[in-house]
Amino acid sequence: MYQIGVDIGGTNIKIGLVDDSLEIVSRASIRFPHESARLVVEAFSAAIRDVLAKKGAAEKELGSIGIVVPGSISPDGASVIDAYNLDFHNVPLRALTQAQFPGIPVFLANDANGAALAELVKGAFVGCRTAVLFTLGTGLGGGLILDGKMFNGGMNQGVELGHAYLVDGGEACTCGNRGCMEAYCAASALAREGAREMRACHDSLLYIRAGGKEQRVDAKLVTDCAKEGDEAAKRAFDTYLGHLSSACASMFNILDPEVLAIGGGLCAAGDFLFGPLQSLVTEKCFYKTRGKVVPAVMGNDAGIIGAAMLKMDAERH
Amino acid sequence: MYQIGVDIGGTNIKIGLVDDSLEIVSRASIRFPHESARLVVEAFSAAIRDVLAKKGAAEKELGSIGIVVPGSISPDGASVIDAYNLDFHNVPLRALTQAQFPGIPVFLANDANGAALAELVKGAFVGCRTAVLFTLGTGLGGGLILDGKMFNGGMNQGVELGHAYLVDGGEACTCGNRGCMEAYCAASALAREGAREMRACHDSLLYIRAGGKEQRVDAKLVTDCAKEGDEAAKRAFDTYLGHLSSACASMFNILDPEVLAIGGGLCAAGDFLFGPLQSLVTEKCFYKTRGKVVPAVMGNDAGIIGAAMLKMDAERH
Repeated sequence: MYQIGVDIGGTNIKIGLVDDSLEIVSRASIRFPHESARLVVEAFSAAIRDVLAKKGAAEKELGSIGIVVPGSISPDGASVIDAYNLDFHNVPLRALTQAQFPGIPVFLANDANGAALAELVKGAFVGCRTAVLFTLGTGLGGGLILDGKMFNGGMNQGVELGHAYLVDGGEACTCGNRGCMEAYCAASALAREGAREMRACHDSLLYIRAGGKEQRVDAKLVTDCAKEGDEAAKRAFDTYLGHLSSACASMFNILDPEVLAIGGGLCAAGDFLFGPLQSLVTEKCFYKTRGKVVPAVMGNDAGIIGAAMLKMDAERH
Repeated sequence: MYQIGVDIGGTNIKIGLVDDSLEIVSRASIRFPHESARLVVEAFSAAIRDVLAKKGAAEKELGSIGIVVPGSISPDGASVIDAYNLDFHNVPLRALTQAQFPGIPVFLANDANGAALAELVKGAFVGCRTAVLFTLGTGLGGGLILDGKMFNGGMNQGVELGHAYLVDGGEACTCGNRGCMEAYCAASALAREGAREMRACHDSLLYIRAGGKEQRVDAKLVTDCAKEGDEAAKRAFDTYLGHLSSACASMFNILDPEVLAIGGGLCAAGDFLFGPLQSLVTEKCFYKTRGKVVPAVMGNDAGIIGAAMLKMDAERH
């Protein structure tokens, strides 16, 4: 039996055909058409048929179609309530997709939840009962594994780890509150700290490489300059590490997970990030025997694999 | 069948005989003897026999003895690792108790976990799958119900909700970090805010009633003065409410519980606390449809009832 995983992003839609050994055996990527939801569904449905055809597989060999989106799903799993990057609001995505593939069950999930599920089935969380995923990008996406299953909130309304407070009253967050984890731990927060240091220090590597232009300071530039020993970049990186380690320690103190994995482009910093991060987290946790902080391993395929495993996860609940 | 619940505190030990309808049918309270753990066990074991005798019940009618302590329990459930108020460190409390009552199973838990379990079996969490308890006193004790069961951490090392960050880098906490939820949301934090306002405002009700003495400003005085309209006390109360609502919103955004209950003496403030608190929490939550904030209802019996239910909870896991 095959499962289809669909990972809808604001730029591309990735489609993968996943076999029983959890390998992606056929795949496609199409541009996200900024059109009506119906046309979006038609576009990825055509791509699903292409992916099947490339492998020579028939629709009746499909066990399910799973779809992950960067947004919130209704508690009944039928609709996307809000996915701002897709301009999807109260879209009955399950029914629209099922109309294209009669008889094949369709499952929806938030993409961060899907990524956590992918880590559980073949990544950093294999064998775990309790685990936390932070995905650091423009925002902080988060997923929880509880009792060996994907957790979508006690009332099935989704988890929003990025909007737990870290510095109540602090930096403004996109959600309207001040001081969320996201406002201090997203990759964009590292860029913000870097830009601050650049403005204050005109002979820094940061200033030179960015040509004094704030919008050219991104998380990678700050990390690269810090690695090369630039003092301004190191200050920005340390400030960021301080907050990220506090956010991790909070999750360890609340849930005592076996593993907390960090995904997103920042992971490429490797030991330069994870070495000091683990030390700070251990120091800040209430019990020194809390679990480990590790890089997420599923990378760009997390969405497809997580989506393809939604049926299996639903059957466990 | 009866169960015995023992609630060990730094001042008193409370013992209750609990029947199948979860009523305490016989009870005792003894002073906590600041002696060796062995003598403590002998003291409450004698009290257990008294409680049984008062009801005319035999030891063979006992299904279990459950004990809750203000401290951390080893992952195997056999020992108290640290309970500072009791001066218990690596005490094999299960074995010591079992030696007094051969053949009767003994269970240990942290008292905040036990209180959450008591709310689940006959209090504010009846029927809930996911719930959060904050007990506000000198510290912030917390307990989680996940999947309809008491949750003691993913690695069975306990949860320490009070030591999740709320204002990273802020007020010093007893744990050594700065800015924990406990440092802003414990009842003692309200007293601290009140003392600050009193020092700044010598014609406040706070100043007059406390005679200008900081140590006389406690959470109840601040609440009473705020209720009577004193501006300084209201500022302190509002500052406290702002932080407590942020801590609650964090828990809703992380776990999406059906209910978050608040226990401790502050609950006596009733609607004066819970009215504005619910409004602030709803405003701060990522989804306005998050669950409710309610007073805990088990009060002083929470420890006994929770302890008595530990065997039943263990059988569910």
